[in-house]
Amino acid sequence: MQEIDIIITGGKALLLDYQNTHLENAAIAVNASEIVAIGQAEQIAKKYRAKKTISAKNSLIMPGFVNCHTHAAMTCFRGIADDLELMDWLNNYIFPAEAKNVDKDMAYWGTLLAAAEMIKSGTTTFCDMYIFEDETARAAKTAGMRCLIGEVLFDFPSPNFKTPEEGLTYTRMLVEKWQNDPLINIIVEPHALYTCSPPLLAEAKKIADKHRLSLGIHLLENKAEQEQLKQKYGKSAASFLKDICYLNERLIAFHCVCFSEEDMKLFADHKCRVSHNPASNMKLASGVAPVPDMLKAGITVGLGTDGCASNNNLDMIKEMSTAAKLHKVARLDPTVMDAQTVVRMATIEGAKVLGMEKIIGSLEVGKKADIIIIGLNEPHLTPLYSEYSHLVYAASGADVDTVLINGKVVMENRKLLTIDETEVMQKVRKIAINVKDSLRQ
Amino acid sequence: MQEIDIIITGGKALLLDYQNTHLENAAIAVNASEIVAIGQAEQIAKKYRAKKTISAKNSLIMPGFVNCHTHAAMTCFRGIADDLELMDWLNNYIFPAEAKNVDKDMAYWGTLLAAAEMIKSGTTTFCDMYIFEDETARAAKTAGMRCLIGEVLFDFPSPNFKTPEEGLTYTRMLVEKWQNDPLINIIVEPHALYTCSPPLLAEAKKIADKHRLSLGIHLLENKAEQEQLKQKYGKSAASFLKDICYLNERLIAFHCVCFSEEDMKLFADHKCRVSHNPASNMKLASGVAPVPDMLKAGITVGLGTDGCASNNNLDMIKEMSTAAKLHKVARLDPTVMDAQTVVRMATIEGAKVLGMEKIIGSLEVGKKADIIIIGLNEPHLTPLYSEYSHLVYAASGADVDTVLINGKVVMENRKLLTIDETEVMQKVRKIAINVKDSLRQ
Repeated sequence: MQEIDIIITGGKALLLDYQNTHLENAAIAVNASEIVAIGQAEQIAKKYRAKKTISAKNSLIMPGFVNCHTHAAMTCFRGIADDLELMDWLNNYIFPAEAKNVDKDMAYWGTLLAAAEMIKSGTTTFCDMYIFEDETARAAKTAGMRCLIGEVLFDFPSPNFKTPEEGLTYTRMLVEKWQNDPLINIIVEPHALYTCSPPLLAEAKKIADKHRLSLGIHLLENKAEQEQLKQKYGKSAASFLKDICYLNERLIAFHCVCFSEEDMKLFADHKCRVSHNPASNMKLASGVAPVPDMLKAGITVGLGTDGCASNNNLDMIKEMSTAAKLHKVARLDPTVMDAQTVVRMATIEGAKVLGMEKIIGSLEVGKKADIIIIGLNEPHLTPLYSEYSHLVYAASGADVDTVLINGKVVMENRKLLTIDETEVMQKVRKIAINVKDSLRQ
Repeated sequence: MQEIDIIITGGKALLLDYQNTHLENAAIAVNASEIVAIGQAEQIAKKYRAKKTISAKNSLIMPGFVNCHTHAAMTCFRGIADDLELMDWLNNYIFPAEAKNVDKDMAYWGTLLAAAEMIKSGTTTFCDMYIFEDETARAAKTAGMRCLIGEVLFDFPSPNFKTPEEGLTYTRMLVEKWQNDPLINIIVEPHALYTCSPPLLAEAKKIADKHRLSLGIHLLENKAEQEQLKQKYGKSAASFLKDICYLNERLIAFHCVCFSEEDMKLFADHKCRVSHNPASNMKLASGVAPVPDMLKAGITVGLGTDGCASNNNLDMIKEMSTAAKLHKVARLDPTVMDAQTVVRMATIEGAKVLGMEKIIGSLEVGKKADIIIIGLNEPHLTPLYSEYSHLVYAASGADVDTVLINGKVVMENRKLLTIDETEVMQKVRKIAINVKDSLRQ
């Protein structure tokens, strides 16, 4: 008998591996941070003795969700302004609120609140772009969450830097500081092509290339941006990105709503990655990204929630439901974006987008133990003909019972073990009082 | 001090009355089936002594949701087939499954499962169209849910009747049997214009007129139906309905996706009602109903989930989120379908659609006590700037803690008090085994 840390046993399992393996009465053996065995409950029980056994009876075991795009600390602005014209929303609410309120304290507590929400809805890895990302990293460490984080870079000052050069320096500091961390990974994140000058884009790329990091950028979120870029550069956005050598498998473009055939071909040819954020695209009335075409073209697409100012939640189960339905109605074709495709986008495909598919995104021996257990013994999940269908069309974030990240149990039976959620909510409520006051002025 | 049954106290409250009253530290006094007072917690405490006090601390008190269109017992087919072409889905899955499996037992237990799900996500009234609706009524009584139910009528046989005449006779039986029930209300429901002959439509109308009942009908769900009706009748669907005297304030049309300007004008002129079912319309790729235009034209529009074969859930909070976002992206206008409008559609406007606005849909003295309490002390609902925003863009059905219907507590702190959910799930799982077998044959 081999002594290990944890056995999760007795549930159905979706492995989300290459074959989309589906197991009944499955068990997963975890030692330290890794999955060491997957099999039938009885087989695993014969071979391993665990310090801790987690029952997954009447439950579904699967890899945790990978949220490919968010601005975690913006939980502090959740619901501050909705249903407005984009420029009204940005100029009269979001930008003033950010200018007056974003500091290290807000970045830390806002991210910790986001981590609580993400864990409670089954997300184990998130990709973040915001301000004071060292605080984001610190909050993710506290929560025990895996992440890929980058300081937002643009030409104008942020609450964290007076010049773009300071933003680049801060990014270099992040790279150095977190380079050996098991959970925190760094990405270089120029905000967008309309907010970053070519020299800034070039400097950002240098950092990414030097350390073999991903580059993340908002791209073609709506028609106005598409037209602005066309005017500015006289060519399609992807052509411009090609000119500045951004097109490779380490590029992650967020949104890609107004994505032309030329953009798509260039992305496919260069193996660039896309984060699709349908709830945000719907709420901000940005448009419908041509995701079924991207998939057909062979582009790797993951799912993201975007930040809480434009969603207003971080629930990947909701995002799956939205993604599956939006493209069906947009194309009047009920066969596009089937449930299994969408669950893969929220797990293994998302891991590929972040360049982390060798360690997360599916349940496989040797991968990190980022595992969630979803309770199936609920009226709204009864009867059960297909787990994929239930995940996409019937489940809710609140059905997630237990979450492991990197082999550590961070939530058990819906109790968060790494975060004092009462304290976090109190802190953020205090921040929100100031946010409200700042908008009144 | 006046002795009453229940006081709900200490929460924020959205009354959804004409003025959209918002109260802090509110209390609602309930006696027998009715709301007898609404006010500040201290005022109510001075005036009333209650047998039972329910704390709504850190919670939101509001009217229960009104689901304007569902086929409750179809929970038994939840997730049986998704992501298919409409005719493949209907002819190879839904119709065979129904022909072989729908009986009284399925209608009862399927509805009771639906009731469990609906109560657990805050729905207090539902409008149902299906087969063996006397069983639907019986299950709603068991659950303590308010409903408006009708036997589906069409030209061909159903598991419950061999001829349309038998369907009409069954409908008359329902009207008589349930006429004095406080919770069960009857509607006359010809299935659709493409499945009912003009004589059947005329007979259905006679029953509705005789008893002053509503008439419910699927209408213009997709382009194919619109074209079929145009060919069959040589005019728009609403024009045809006008010819057969269906257009009045007791007509409830489900879907109205392919709704022309002429249809809209006729509906507005005759005060007809519409149930908008966005999740189903998206999943089946039916199209986007022109709801913002309907609202502008003055048509009363409520929200419905449709049945679990085409949604696949009965969660009105999800439906609100979908409704708010779908129209924004469809029109590239983030200002349409604002959160407050959508919450009204899910409550008081839905009550108007069902002709029940005098007794439900808002919290007002003299109305029936159909009240839900939603916990706000959750990471995903923190911070709180706007209750409407949170309901539509951040909340989940699982946030509903406590539900009263007709003055009776049917769920308290998420424990169902009228339904043994373990028993119901077991019964439906047994039914599902037969359903699966029947599709294999």
